[in-house]
Amino acid sequence: MTTTRRRRGRPKGESGSRDLIVTAAEHEFGEHGYDGATIRAIAGRAGVDSALVHHYFGTKADLFAEVIGIPLRPDIDVPAILEGPRDEVGERVVRYVLEAFERPEVRRRGVTMIRVAIGSKVMSPPLVGFLSRELIGRITARLDAPDATQRAALVASQMAGLLVTRYVVKLPAIADLPVDEIVARVGPTIQRYLFD
Amino acid sequence: MTTTRRRRGRPKGESGSRDLIVTAAEHEFGEHGYDGATIRAIAGRAGVDSALVHHYFGTKADLFAEVIGIPLRPDIDVPAILEGPRDEVGERVVRYVLEAFERPEVRRRGVTMIRVAIGSKVMSPPLVGFLSRELIGRITARLDAPDATQRAALVASQMAGLLVTRYVVKLPAIADLPVDEIVARVGPTIQRYLFD
Repeated sequence: MTTTRRRRGRPKGESGSRDLIVTAAEHEFGEHGYDGATIRAIAGRAGVDSALVHHYFGTKADLFAEVIGIPLRPDIDVPAILEGPRDEVGERVVRYVLEAFERPEVRRRGVTMIRVAIGSKVMSPPLVGFLSRELIGRITARLDAPDATQRAALVASQMAGLLVTRYVVKLPAIADLPVDEIVARVGPTIQRYLFD
Repeated sequence: MTTTRRRRGRPKGESGSRDLIVTAAEHEFGEHGYDGATIRAIAGRAGVDSALVHHYFGTKADLFAEVIGIPLRPDIDVPAILEGPRDEVGERVVRYVLEAFERPEVRRRGVTMIRVAIGSKVMSPPLVGFLSRELIGRITARLDAPDATQRAALVASQMAGLLVTRYVVKLPAIADLPVDEIVARVGPTIQRYLFD
């Protein structure tokens, strides 16, 4: 458990409690799904009072959105990816997402997020909201094309399918491929969706 | 409820019971997930005895595999798609899958299948088994390439992502696109994965 990973600059006690709650939430959502997880159980697992969970994170939906938001930081990363050499954007997108998911803590959280968000009707809209706002919106804002939203959404469709097949259901022919191989094969797809 | 849709040639009574059981199973898996659904509840919903469900379908896993297998018939359709004009295979793959999912009964079953299989750790392996055997295996067998399995798996990754974003989580920028538009944009991706 690291206490410096996020919300740097806040008092250490709060940061530690927040981390404990988020980690507990990941486990509860992962084990019981969105509908089965409760703030009470999450608080119990984190060793804090339910009121503290509500105080820091609001509702269960807010807390899940927080859990969703952790693995990737589109606000920082999307501009960095899109602002490099244009003819390598596709490969950079694929490499960025895969290298993030190769890290065990991101993979664990990300897989839980994908399982819960796809497995539960209730949680699909928050995921879509997150994807639309944080990812597709940010990509669209930097593309100079009238159909930028559709282009960004097609990118999302390929990347979502890659994450689902490689990390969630673990389709062997995808899960066994080295990252470099996937970057080389899928990068041109992303490039074409964005710019072709 | 149609009774002629599947298992044609069997006695009508058996066919009718099987259809009732499969429909009941779709609903139970969709509402309660794989772990929550029981043979007893499925039998109750279908108005038959549990023993009949076991007799026709074996275990709960077997029954789910049957439900998974219903929307598409890869054994018939994959050869037909791959054996047409080679330079349009990519577009035919996309059109075939999308046109199937545009049909309400396929969409309902398919979305349930995807939600359950991705949402439950238990059900991912059966889905992977089905995809590997029925879809990727059949495509691979018809591709003349040493890396045919990887090519087929990349196709699966894009198509899985398309189904998840368009029909399961309903990402607006994908869900709102006409089928023809998606065929035109995603077809070349599939074409490249298969043959490039």
